Amino acid sequence: MNILSIIEKKKNNQALTQQEIQFFVNGYTTGQIPDYQMSALLMAIRINDMNDEETFYLTEAMVHSGDVIDLSAIEGFKVDKHSTGGVGDKVTLVVTPILAALGVPVAKFSGRGLGITGGTVDKLESIKGMNVELSQEEFIKNVQVHGIAVAGQTGNLCPADKKIYALRDVTGTVDSIPLIASSIISKKIASGSDGIVLDVKYGNGAFMKTKEMAEVLAEKMCAIGERFGRKVVYTLSDMNNPLGRFIGNKVEVIEAMDVLANNTANTHQDLIDDCVEVASKMFMLAANVSQEEAAVKVREVIDNGDAYAKFLEFVEAQGGQVEDLHVNDTAYTVEVTAATGGTIESVNALAIGELSVLLGAGRLTKDSPLDFDAGIKLVAKQGDTVAAGDIVAVIYANVEVTEEMKQKAQAAFHIA
Amino acid sequence: MNILSIIEKKKNNQALTQQEIQFFVNGYTTGQIPDYQMSALLMAIRINDMNDEETFYLTEAMVHSGDVIDLSAIEGFKVDKHSTGGVGDKVTLVVTPILAALGVPVAKFSGRGLGITGGTVDKLESIKGMNVELSQEEFIKNVQVHGIAVAGQTGNLCPADKKIYALRDVTGTVDSIPLIASSIISKKIASGSDGIVLDVKYGNGAFMKTKEMAEVLAEKMCAIGERFGRKVVYTLSDMNNPLGRFIGNKVEVIEAMDVLANNTANTHQDLIDDCVEVASKMFMLAANVSQEEAAVKVREVIDNGDAYAKFLEFVEAQGGQVEDLHVNDTAYTVEVTAATGGTIESVNALAIGELSVLLGAGRLTKDSPLDFDAGIKLVAKQGDTVAAGDIVAVIYANVEVTEEMKQKAQAAFHIA
Repeated sequence: MNILSIIEKKKNNQALTQQEIQFFVNGYTTGQIPDYQMSALLMAIRINDMNDEETFYLTEAMVHSGDVIDLSAIEGFKVDKHSTGGVGDKVTLVVTPILAALGVPVAKFSGRGLGITGGTVDKLESIKGMNVELSQEEFIKNVQVHGIAVAGQTGNLCPADKKIYALRDVTGTVDSIPLIASSIISKKIASGSDGIVLDVKYGNGAFMKTKEMAEVLAEKMCAIGERFGRKVVYTLSDMNNPLGRFIGNKVEVIEAMDVLANNTANTHQDLIDDCVEVASKMFMLAANVSQEEAAVKVREVIDNGDAYAKFLEFVEAQGGQVEDLHVNDTAYTVEVTAATGGTIESVNALAIGELSVLLGAGRLTKDSPLDFDAGIKLVAKQGDTVAAGDIVAVIYANVEVTEEMKQKAQAAFHIA
Repeated sequence: MNILSIIEKKKNNQALTQQEIQFFVNGYTTGQIPDYQMSALLMAIRINDMNDEETFYLTEAMVHSGDVIDLSAIEGFKVDKHSTGGVGDKVTLVVTPILAALGVPVAKFSGRGLGITGGTVDKLESIKGMNVELSQEEFIKNVQVHGIAVAGQTGNLCPADKKIYALRDVTGTVDSIPLIASSIISKKIASGSDGIVLDVKYGNGAFMKTKEMAEVLAEKMCAIGERFGRKVVYTLSDMNNPLGRFIGNKVEVIEAMDVLANNTANTHQDLIDDCVEVASKMFMLAANVSQEEAAVKVREVIDNGDAYAKFLEFVEAQGGQVEDLHVNDTAYTVEVTAATGGTIESVNALAIGELSVLLGAGRLTKDSPLDFDAGIKLVAKQGDTVAAGDIVAVIYANVEVTEEMKQKAQAAFHIA
């Protein structure tokens, strides 16, 4: 077996065997296969696709390229969730304390953000003192004691995926269904949960541009997860508009807390609905009840304050101090007004996400530093009616807000 | 403009612009674009193809990546030929002195062999004293004085093609019509001739496996060459069988001399026909006559000894000594017999080519040394009738000829 014959096969649109897939995943991870051969193979996979068998074998090879976390020390059905990422997506911050409040153990590994897509770990780090780099022992102990822990992924989880993803990012091979599916599911499988809820986003602010593509991806991921013996369900959600009212890091933590505290005035119904949907699906898997029954329970722990209390307990357990969180802590606060009057047809998620990167709230490259305080508030959302000159957004920044940035924000509001 | 957007475009099956193609060719040649991005782009080109415009721009960018040879100091219409390469292909050795004998200036740059495909320069170097590394001044002077010079390509001719070809070789992206066409034609354009005859081979011993693919490639190359203002014609020839009776280096020089000297007993009609066809097309371009008229002239200089005399003059002018050329100069001479009796349906060119590499007559890698004396003689050819045990081939080797090699030779003869 050699890498050239594997490249030739995929180039000629033939299916690869389990052995061939293991060979290139291991060979690339150990450095025996150079980048330039791997990128040719990835492009052949991107264009000629992989069938379900191949995608499963790819996922399997990536899972076994590193550590597989053993959560057996934690009693109960462990349920995880994954969002394919979007602008203003702080759902993990809301649903994990809800599940913990319902008695479901939450052992959640989360990622950092890249580009317009924020990461839960970054958002948590905007809380003073918050430690998201727990050892495996601390992590498991926190779940045992508090029912919840959220931490960054350890260094040795799916190293094959890390290396392949970095190459995909610079070779135009990100947007491949089998490559995305195997990348996501391999990390979930290696993270050790029993059940997984996938929140698959579609729209201009997401990887998947259409609902149809999102559904194909979701179905593929469910099929792989089930082959690994996990319970997997998904929800599809629109990411043509940012989720909720806030985009940034600290501002998103504050909004998540408002959802948990039932302060509906400071957030938006689209975020609340998405959180309830995802949390209900997670509880459905864990408790083996219907989604309707699960939704009732979820609303219950929000309404009675248990979920909010659990959030405070979780943050405190990881050293975080929530007392001093304020939306407006930046050097500059700039209001953005509507260019014309009318009804807002949409708020361009991609444009708002790009603006947040310019403000320092998102990363251009893996090593870019973040400004935790920077962010955007959407005063007006899709469906709202505004008059010309009404304030539609507020920019919080420690860099000077240029005319160009303001115009980008204004132009993101499509008003009919 | 950036390389990622160019990769994305080709990945999504869109045509690239002249500017985009120049950008990636120059960027890769100067080292600003890394191998792993170029190989992803090459795979996208291989799978999604390039249209005629793109292929022309690619060729143009490769031509201008290095020196363009100026042959204007040589009077007359300069005609070049190119073979896509095959087993036993010594046509250049025959046709160049024929053209020179007909008064057409021959300023020919040739390559070295790789794999089963031999190179004219290697074959010439098997002649004692022969210098194929002429300076540009010596090269032009030889053409002016003797009407002919054949030399290896200079270091700075199409450096982009050299670098891209080396990457294609290890990334499964060799078999792409636009990449092959631009690679061949760019070198011919940079070599400065006015007219080009393309000898495009098809069959198991050639790049192009079918006649149809060879024709597509040939038509594409003609279209590009004509856009550069060159006269280009082609001939398609079968490379399922080796060409002529000898495969190797020195043995092929000897066979070429036998064709020129009209010693038809020591060669085979297939080689003679191919040489007359190519030489006639070359003279047709140079003298602006019909191919039939050209063929008469070509036969004339073979029959009257002018072509053979020109060959001797050419070799002498470059320091070569043809007096001591013998077929059988090797430590081992091994006869191969027919396994069964019958009519030979074909002699597998690929298998014979691979055997010649094993004997040291061909290169496995760019830097492998060659054994100039090693080679194979095909005593029997396609269409011949043999009895079991008849000698069908002779192996000349300085390495011990293993039972496996003998069997490979025997199995190459398909006898019905």
